[in-house]
Parts: sequence; structure tokens; C-alpha cells
Amino acid sequence: MTLQRPKLSFWFDFGSTYSYLTAMRIETVARDRGLDLDWRPFLLGPIFNRQGWSTSPFNLYPAKGRYMWRDMERLCEEAGLPLVQPDPFPQNGLIAARIAHANRRAEWVGAFVRAVFMAEFGEGRDISDPALLAGLLLDLGADARACLAEADSIEVKIGLRAAVAEAETLGIFGAPSIVTEDGELYWGNDRLEDAVEWALRIVT
Amino acid sequence: MTLQRPKLSFWFDFGSTYSYLTAMRIETVARDRGLDLDWRPFLLGPIFNRQGWSTSPFNLYPAKGRYMWRDMERLCEEAGLPLVQPDPFPQNGLIAARIAHANRRAEWVGAFVRAVFMAEFGEGRDISDPALLAGLLLDLGADARACLAEADSIEVKIGLRAAVAEAETLGIFGAPSIVTEDGELYWGNDRLEDAVEWALRIVT
Repeated sequence: MTLQRPKLSFWFDFGSTYSYLTAMRIETVARDRGLDLDWRPFLLGPIFNRQGWSTSPFNLYPAKGRYMWRDMERLCEEAGLPLVQPDPFPQNGLIAARIAHANRRAEWVGAFVRAVFMAEFGEGRDISDPALLAGLLLDLGADARACLAEADSIEVKIGLRAAVAEAETLGIFGAPSIVTEDGELYWGNDRLEDAVEWALRIVT
Repeated sequence: MTLQRPKLSFWFDFGSTYSYLTAMRIETVARDRGLDLDWRPFLLGPIFNRQGWSTSPFNLYPAKGRYMWRDMERLCEEAGLPLVQPDPFPQNGLIAARIAHANRRAEWVGAFVRAVFMAEFGEGRDISDPALLAGLLLDLGADARACLAEADSIEVKIGLRAAVAEAETLGIFGAPSIVTEDGELYWGNDRLEDAVEWALRIVT
């Protein structure tokens, strides 16, 4: 008899600050607790647009934005992660999201996601730059040229758009979001541990 | 030599769901960690209005609202607290806030705040009802008639309005918010423990 390993789906947006915190630790957390992990890049932009927001709520609501950056400083210090405020914020993570979506079952997807977030929030680099992304892919031994071409294909563009629609079906309105197989939704880096406990509660 | 006890200021809105979670535990947490506590009722309404919001963001953004209620269910279950969705939501906590503001240094203020939140979110009662508030005050041995009259005075009305302005000066944009004496702002029930650690770090 094979034991079924419970699974978490990690929904993230490359422009999202708190997604950085979760992306850097979720693969380790999942492995340590015996959980499978689905990497689910998506785009908050279309969801925000439909709410009438033209940019991140952290830009629209300055007090919330100032708080978020201070909160991120404290949390990154605690996690031992560097933090640079990217300019502009939020960054355009569309190409990175298409690459991650197309390769979401590749062995190197976690390493790629972490490398993009580290370039963005750890080093303040421009993650919309295909040359930057190509460099990160090459570092991982991936075929950078093929990945970038694939990311520009109609199939991948439609696929990522479908992922956004799927996120909304799941009730997702922000990032990071973590969803268990039975549909429990957890929003925010603060809820990762609760999501893990919920996922484990099903099998034990 | 008298050791100075560090202090937390607890800023809450009686209509706020997550303020309920913090209100029910903060006095115990503060006492256990040797911290003084300032009860700071305020009103999110005017702050939300200036952001262009006519009601709670949990009503304006339905996906966020649905998530919040599910999140509250999970958190209340874990905390052993009852949860009833008040109708309407948010409740009008203006009179309760005026009473709590006017008596924020009274020995019974913590018990009053907890009683209001429990009536609202534990029992689904209407906290805008002066008779309900009078009953809670009498249970605490307070002079209910005098408290209600004082809450209707111009001094208290102006005082609570000044508290809202002070909250904004501190960078507060939501509730609950916890502020340390050196001005560190923590937003949300999830951050209470971090606020405690920050406050203690100053003296040790």
C-alpha cells in the first residue's frame, strides 16, 4: 500500500512582497512535513483591476504601504533575508510568471522561483528583463532560449490566464495564498504553518 | 530603583473582527510578560472614508470578506471563542467606543471591552443599543447611567475624534494595531507576540 502524500498548492505573484517570504521557505517546510507542493504562479494585476485598483494596494493606500515595508524589514531580518525595495514597485513579473507556469512541474521550478524573488527583493534587480531571466535559467542548467520562446507562445499565455481564473474560482484575492487539496484557503505568509497543519489533519 | 515597565498601546475598533481576537487575550498576554497596557478605542470609519471606502473592505471586496469569515471561524475555534456573524456587519460601535475612551484608565475597562466584543461576535447582539451597553456596565459594577451620559458629552466626542487623529499620526490604517512606546507599529492579531518581543527588547 502506498501512502498518499497530502499536497499544498502555493499561489504566488512575482510582484508580491509577502510572496517572497513564503517562496524562500515553502519547499523546505513542505519537504520537512512530508507534503507535496504545487507551484502556482498567477497574476494579481487582473484581479486587482476588477476590484477597481490600478496598482498595488500598498501604493494606493500610503499608510498601508509604509507599514508593509517596515513589516517586511522586520520579517526579513528575522528570516535572515536581504530586502531591497524594487523600483518601480510592483515589478512587472509577467514573463517570469509565464516561464514558471510553463515549467511548474520541472525539477528546477522552485529554484527558479527563489532566484527571481531574490533578484527582485534581495538585490533590487528588474525582473521584467528577459536577459536577467535568461541568466537565472542558465544558472539552473535550463535551456534559457527555449524557455523564453515558450513563454511567448499563445499556449502559455492562455495557460497563465486560465491560472488567474482558477485562482479566482478558489477564492483567491491576494498573494501568497496556500490551498489544500480539499479547498481550504490560507492567505499570507503568516498562514503557511496553519495550511500545513490542515493538510496533515486529513491523513492522520 | 524602580524598574520601568514597558507599555503596549492597543488600538481597536469595536466593529473589527480581528480586534475581537486580540481584545480577548491581550490583557493576559501583557500581564504574563510584565507589560503595561493602554486601551485605545478608535474609529476606523473616518479613516476608511478618507480612503474612499464607504464600509468595511470585507464588504467592499466579497472574496476578501468570505475569506475573513472562514479565517475567523478557524481562529476562533483554535482560541476556544464563539463566533457569530453580526447583522449588520460592521456593527455601529460609536457609543461603546466613547464609553471605553472616557473610561480607558478605569480598572474595569478591559472587562468592558471584552464584554462588548463577546456580545457582538460571540452572541451576535446589537452593540449600538444603549440598553445592552448599560447592562454590561452594570454587570461590572460601573455607574451605567453616568457612563452613558458622559459618553454623550462634547468632551468625550471630541476626545474620541482626537484619538482617531492620533491613530493616523501613528500610521494606523486598520485594527487591531499595537504600538510600542518607541512608535513601532504592529497590525493584526497575528503580530501581538512580535509587538511584545519588541517592547521587551527595549528594557533587556
